[in-house]
Amino acid sequence: MKKIVFLFYEGMTALDAIGPHQVLVNIPDAEVKLVASKVGLVTTDTTHLKFLAEHSFEEVLEADILVIPGARSATTLKDQPGVLEWIRSIDQTTTWTTSVCTGSLILGAAGLLQDLPATSHWSVMNDLKKWGAIPTERRVVEAGKIITAAGVSAGIDMALILTAKIAGDHVAKRIQLGIEYDPQPPFDCGSVAKAPPQIVKALLADFGKNDES
Amino acid sequence: MKKIVFLFYEGMTALDAIGPHQVLVNIPDAEVKLVASKVGLVTTDTTHLKFLAEHSFEEVLEADILVIPGARSATTLKDQPGVLEWIRSIDQTTTWTTSVCTGSLILGAAGLLQDLPATSHWSVMNDLKKWGAIPTERRVVEAGKIITAAGVSAGIDMALILTAKIAGDHVAKRIQLGIEYDPQPPFDCGSVAKAPPQIVKALLADFGKNDES
Repeated sequence: MKKIVFLFYEGMTALDAIGPHQVLVNIPDAEVKLVASKVGLVTTDTTHLKFLAEHSFEEVLEADILVIPGARSATTLKDQPGVLEWIRSIDQTTTWTTSVCTGSLILGAAGLLQDLPATSHWSVMNDLKKWGAIPTERRVVEAGKIITAAGVSAGIDMALILTAKIAGDHVAKRIQLGIEYDPQPPFDCGSVAKAPPQIVKALLADFGKNDES
Repeated sequence: MKKIVFLFYEGMTALDAIGPHQVLVNIPDAEVKLVASKVGLVTTDTTHLKFLAEHSFEEVLEADILVIPGARSATTLKDQPGVLEWIRSIDQTTTWTTSVCTGSLILGAAGLLQDLPATSHWSVMNDLKKWGAIPTERRVVEAGKIITAAGVSAGIDMALILTAKIAGDHVAKRIQLGIEYDPQPPFDCGSVAKAPPQIVKALLADFGKNDES
């Protein structure tokens, strides 16, 4: 049995969690738990979309795999009592501790990225330095048992890579075909390196940032 | 204001909905409603993952965009009282009626795909014929105002294409960069054409099918 635990929290970006979830839940013997500070509905990054957290921190004390999704203001989570302690405590029991998007800033705040290469959403990449991590512009970054993924949709790629590690290539390929993951984005602008500068600038302004620093 | 309505129902595949949702919700002036036969929690394809449907069929009578996600047993939905009537009625009001994965079989059952090219999850592609549709092996298929997407993850591509249509390329590119959709699957086996035959066969057996017919 592979115990896979997702952290749910107010404001979380829905796809950060549901992308990897759709992959990892299909690993044979996966037992998935959705955990928040307390049992109940969690409002995602859009107020109309709510997920149910069926378990509280007190109920879940260990995991083989921990997945921390991101949020627009992920680091505000660090001020929530108990969350960083819970993450550190679960991490002590994991084989893999992972994050998607700005979830890596939560791992950083929990002290788990010190001196490690890590990635995050491109718009906050440099914020990783605050937590002693080494910003690394790759879609998926492995550092020992810590795996961080880039923004939002990168969680799907991360989960397939992780699946191959824990259950083999055959299982990962099966899941990839099961979710028909043969991506064909209509534009080639899904990363800062590829997007036109004015798109990058407009989006940073949306995020309340004036430049990429 | 763009009224975007997602159908939620028991057994729905989570990523079928959340993929396009993460894209479409970022369209300026999008007003998204998550609708089920009745207000309340909807259990997705994995029993531990539950979404809240905030509106019932009675409360939502029109939409600019309708999105129908798929499910392992999507066509059982057609036996649920009122659902096909509701879909037909909403479709009368839409600019775009869309589906992801086996959601196209629901559109078919509602009589909306007669003589139209459409796609679906690869494993049920031929089932489209039952509803008079023309199975079309493309990731996203447009037929007038109906847009169908292939399996699960194809909803993200479909939503970006749709975004470009209704809000322009600039907005679609911005959203693509926002969700950092620069996919890098670890394997090249996300479609039947690309996957090794033994993987296709194993998965069809999982789905309770002996061949692709």
